[in-house]
Amino acid sequence: MKCTRCRKVAEVTLPSHHSGFCRECYFVFFRNQVSRAIEKQKLLAREDRILIALSGGKDSLSLAWQLKELGYDVTGLHVDLGIPESSGPSRAATERFCSSAGIPLHVLETAQQGLPIPEVKRRIKRPICSVCGSIKRYFFNRFALEGGYTALATGHNLNDEVARLFSNVLSWDEGYLGDQGPLLLPREGFVRKVKPLFRVTEFETAAFCFLRGIEHASAPCPYSTGATFTFYKTLWETLESEQPGRRISFYENFLKRGKPAFNAVSCERKDALTPCASCGYPTSLEVCSVCRLREHMSAEEKGRG
Amino acid sequence: MKCTRCRKVAEVTLPSHHSGFCRECYFVFFRNQVSRAIEKQKLLAREDRILIALSGGKDSLSLAWQLKELGYDVTGLHVDLGIPESSGPSRAATERFCSSAGIPLHVLETAQQGLPIPEVKRRIKRPICSVCGSIKRYFFNRFALEGGYTALATGHNLNDEVARLFSNVLSWDEGYLGDQGPLLLPREGFVRKVKPLFRVTEFETAAFCFLRGIEHASAPCPYSTGATFTFYKTLWETLESEQPGRRISFYENFLKRGKPAFNAVSCERKDALTPCASCGYPTSLEVCSVCRLREHMSAEEKGRG
Repeated sequence: MKCTRCRKVAEVTLPSHHSGFCRECYFVFFRNQVSRAIEKQKLLAREDRILIALSGGKDSLSLAWQLKELGYDVTGLHVDLGIPESSGPSRAATERFCSSAGIPLHVLETAQQGLPIPEVKRRIKRPICSVCGSIKRYFFNRFALEGGYTALATGHNLNDEVARLFSNVLSWDEGYLGDQGPLLLPREGFVRKVKPLFRVTEFETAAFCFLRGIEHASAPCPYSTGATFTFYKTLWETLESEQPGRRISFYENFLKRGKPAFNAVSCERKDALTPCASCGYPTSLEVCSVCRLREHMSAEEKGRG
Repeated sequence: MKCTRCRKVAEVTLPSHHSGFCRECYFVFFRNQVSRAIEKQKLLAREDRILIALSGGKDSLSLAWQLKELGYDVTGLHVDLGIPESSGPSRAATERFCSSAGIPLHVLETAQQGLPIPEVKRRIKRPICSVCGSIKRYFFNRFALEGGYTALATGHNLNDEVARLFSNVLSWDEGYLGDQGPLLLPREGFVRKVKPLFRVTEFETAAFCFLRGIEHASAPCPYSTGATFTFYKTLWETLESEQPGRRISFYENFLKRGKPAFNAVSCERKDALTPCASCGYPTSLEVCSVCRLREHMSAEEKGRG
């Protein structure tokens, strides 16, 4: 196949876009997808101070690389979860990348916040992935607000977004459907959250890292089962290969016509939040889930001591 | 496996319901599913005069059998499309069934209305399935209104409904999403339309016919390709076998939380209909699509003669 832009030999073929690209033109394509996402959905402005959630994986590193190349003011935050096998390599990949790309990096260790994930996993009964997810979201948001950042960017790609949207549609959760999208506006206690990679697929960020020579962590978290999401992603591979372009059209049409229909419910839900009695960040309970978890962890610690 | 109700040997197992039934208890289950659908969604009242669209297939015949057994006032209408291979056996199965079940039957031949389907197919460029579908809907609706029936019942089962809902969700068509459901209320020029089988699957109507000894037509229409819908149905077989009960929960939660969100758009669209200048039935154009097709067919006829 020849490159759709310059007619040289294509290195990447993209059936969803009826296109193929050589290395240089692929970079142009990738940059365009990210700019287009940012502009069409009004995700970021030139004057934004952007904090990027950097896990060290292909998605977050491509995002940081691309935002910096586009001239945005970016800083990374890596949350070190302290999980044996996976956290070490993830942190190392993030540090290596930021140092070579010239991106300032902060590292926050959950253990220093009283929440080493392996310990948390041992002591709670709920699935660790959902707990770990809320811990990360809490610290990313708090760090961004306290550091005066105006936006928090995450590396969610189109496959992630479509799997989540699909899961929310299967259960018709109006609140989640009203909230889902690449832009979550700021409000009291919440920084603006953006997903500038929502137009690019998992395959496309992997190809980007490969062609740019970005070394990223790839060991899956040893605690993650991710069975349901993986199942939805596989199902969507089938849909996409049968109907190329379906993933992006499903997601974009949702933003245009589906999401507005559910917006009211999600606003109502947000109105029900109040400041946590302990940390002051918004919660639907008196004390937020992260503070309760911390109390629980330190109480057990004392009980043992 | 033992029957969930009476502990005899089960003849039908239904993973979606975590159940299995012997023959007699399966009939109770099937009847309950239909009554529950009718009651929960307020589809029919005891005093309704119901016209059933009878194709001669397993779904419409099970529906007619069950509604009659439940004591409703039912009459059948079979639309004979004049398609070689399939229309003959379909009509014969319908006539045999109605005569043995004691259900009054009317037959309407589209050829006598100037619309023999094989000729229509030869002369139009659009896909025949969508044209044939609108011709059938037109005559079913018109026959019901002119005969003073208060409801038109069709045999759409859960698989049909979920495949259609899924297709509408993939494209986020707000108008179709607002309209989709087992109940379409009557309005100027439209009889009330109901789908009392929306809680039962294709497998369940097939098992019902088999166990009741209902002989039905099963030759597929030679014109139907049905590729997309078949693909969605296959995909949903995978989803259902991975998550038993997902089909019904997806559909019922849509009725509860999804559909209301899209209702306004669908009402707006309906407000845009006016009576057809030729037949008087509602249309979004000056002359409705069926009348235009008739004119087209008779004009070509004259042109040839």
